[in-house]
Amino acid sequence: MHSVGRSWLLLTGFVLFYVVYLLFGALVFSSLERPAEDKLREDVEALKLEFLNHSCVNVAALEGFLLKVLTANKYGVSVLKNASVVSNWDLASSMFFANTLVTTVGYGHTTPLSDAGKAFSILYALIGVPFTMLVLTACVQRIMHPLVLAPVGLLHRLGLRPRPATVVHFTLLLLLVVLCFFVAPAAVFRELEPSWSFLDGVYFCFISLCTIGLGDFVPGTQPRQKYRSLYQLSVMFYMFMGLMMMYLVLRTIHKMADLHGLTTFLQLPRCEDPDLDEDQKPIVEDGQGAQAPSFRTEETSKPLEAASQPSYNTINTS
Amino acid sequence: MHSVGRSWLLLTGFVLFYVVYLLFGALVFSSLERPAEDKLREDVEALKLEFLNHSCVNVAALEGFLLKVLTANKYGVSVLKNASVVSNWDLASSMFFANTLVTTVGYGHTTPLSDAGKAFSILYALIGVPFTMLVLTACVQRIMHPLVLAPVGLLHRLGLRPRPATVVHFTLLLLLVVLCFFVAPAAVFRELEPSWSFLDGVYFCFISLCTIGLGDFVPGTQPRQKYRSLYQLSVMFYMFMGLMMMYLVLRTIHKMADLHGLTTFLQLPRCEDPDLDEDQKPIVEDGQGAQAPSFRTEETSKPLEAASQPSYNTINTS
Repeated sequence: MHSVGRSWLLLTGFVLFYVVYLLFGALVFSSLERPAEDKLREDVEALKLEFLNHSCVNVAALEGFLLKVLTANKYGVSVLKNASVVSNWDLASSMFFANTLVTTVGYGHTTPLSDAGKAFSILYALIGVPFTMLVLTACVQRIMHPLVLAPVGLLHRLGLRPRPATVVHFTLLLLLVVLCFFVAPAAVFRELEPSWSFLDGVYFCFISLCTIGLGDFVPGTQPRQKYRSLYQLSVMFYMFMGLMMMYLVLRTIHKMADLHGLTTFLQLPRCEDPDLDEDQKPIVEDGQGAQAPSFRTEETSKPLEAASQPSYNTINTS
Repeated sequence: MHSVGRSWLLLTGFVLFYVVYLLFGALVFSSLERPAEDKLREDVEALKLEFLNHSCVNVAALEGFLLKVLTANKYGVSVLKNASVVSNWDLASSMFFANTLVTTVGYGHTTPLSDAGKAFSILYALIGVPFTMLVLTACVQRIMHPLVLAPVGLLHRLGLRPRPATVVHFTLLLLLVVLCFFVAPAAVFRELEPSWSFLDGVYFCFISLCTIGLGDFVPGTQPRQKYRSLYQLSVMFYMFMGLMMMYLVLRTIHKMADLHGLTTFLQLPRCEDPDLDEDQKPIVEDGQGAQAPSFRTEETSKPLEAASQPSYNTINTS
């Protein structure tokens, strides 16, 4: 009972801290952005007044016109002369959109206009999102050895103890990821996108590889972009590789947390200990189910007695 | 070697199929959206011409004006009279934005304007995204018993065999999730948002709970929204509950795939078999590392001999 009580206490603590964290974020964002927004709002207001003063357009006509312009803009159709040449739905751009759907990045710089497009987006993501996770997982499984297991083994052979070895390795891995997937791409984007600063580049890389995808910065959307299709394909490739590395880093953190006892402390182990029996055993005990074929080496992979785990996940189906 | 060869073949197949899937999506999106886009583009063009004809504004002045209007709009500042009253960065809206960051939904209907805001977004998400995952995982662990293990146990006691029991349970769970987290909220959104159809509501729920978050539909952004803050808080609560249920469904699918031998077939088990030894053992064998404390019941949770696993992940550090 003590363990169960502690686990609920931890959960309550988590949820409370989550709310506090959101409130804290809200306060900071509000204080950081409010002045910038007010300034921009004033500028736009002044601009509109000036435009009205220097022309014979009446307010209502302009409002009506702008409403339609902004609605079209929401769907990626710009009223501007330069921007109107390029379609958002040529093959490369459509593929870029499909890619942002299945990776759950979802910039939203272009969105489906038609009901058929929306319905197809749902279906497409329904299959595509789990499939992308599958492909990424398969890839991460393959690079786990050369990038994590082998280097840690090497550090270990060089005389480092297990824990320091993982810490040194993780620091190096993080450095590599930051350099290759944040700093270097940000430098490239600063060169290729005239309006982007270096911070904008890092911000884009981060927002993309966390799959947040705000869409305020999307590469290759300038009106006169050279080799647009090739550029978009490269960004897609970068995103795939980047997401793979993010998965790898997450998994390495998970392994480190296991080694350092953090998952046990937080009672949140997913692929490890207390949850291990839950994750490893099928939903129902197939001991008495003669029909269920044994795909696993039961004697080695299910060593835990149900009774040895005091948690909620022991169903007594027998 | 045979198994390794098959595993690489599978991976290559996955990646090839992934590219084909993206291409297929691109073709469908392109053919569905191109006509709608062309129509909208023509309308906007006609609108602009008509506006220019009925006023004494010259083309250059209008273009310059619209460029600034659209740029401001990108940052969530609308030039329209109605829209300009409300701030995107009051406390509730900021909290809503913080929530879309940490859940990786990222609608992008509002985005930070200032460099400080961008930098803080990176820091905030860096801590917030893993923390949110942690909270969601903790919550899912607690609802796993009443919503998955107990019902399956009940079905099993009612006489169903393990596999049919999981299939029946999963169908019921899916029905429940679709009704409570897609159909019902879509109906509510159709009532609350004047411009949304039922499909728009379902589309919004789906795009949000998959964390794609395109941001073409965001609740509570109408100019004269009643009880906006309360509405935004409710949507945040809905999203948290919805994400929790999506995690639960994913985990149930994973368990089903294990039971039905799918993960073994695809050699992609994460928390199961072939990878089990990799995920369970710490990055380095701590057998000889006297310093590494044993947080786990080694004798029960590490039953696999390294030699019994022919995969790449056995480091011979000893």
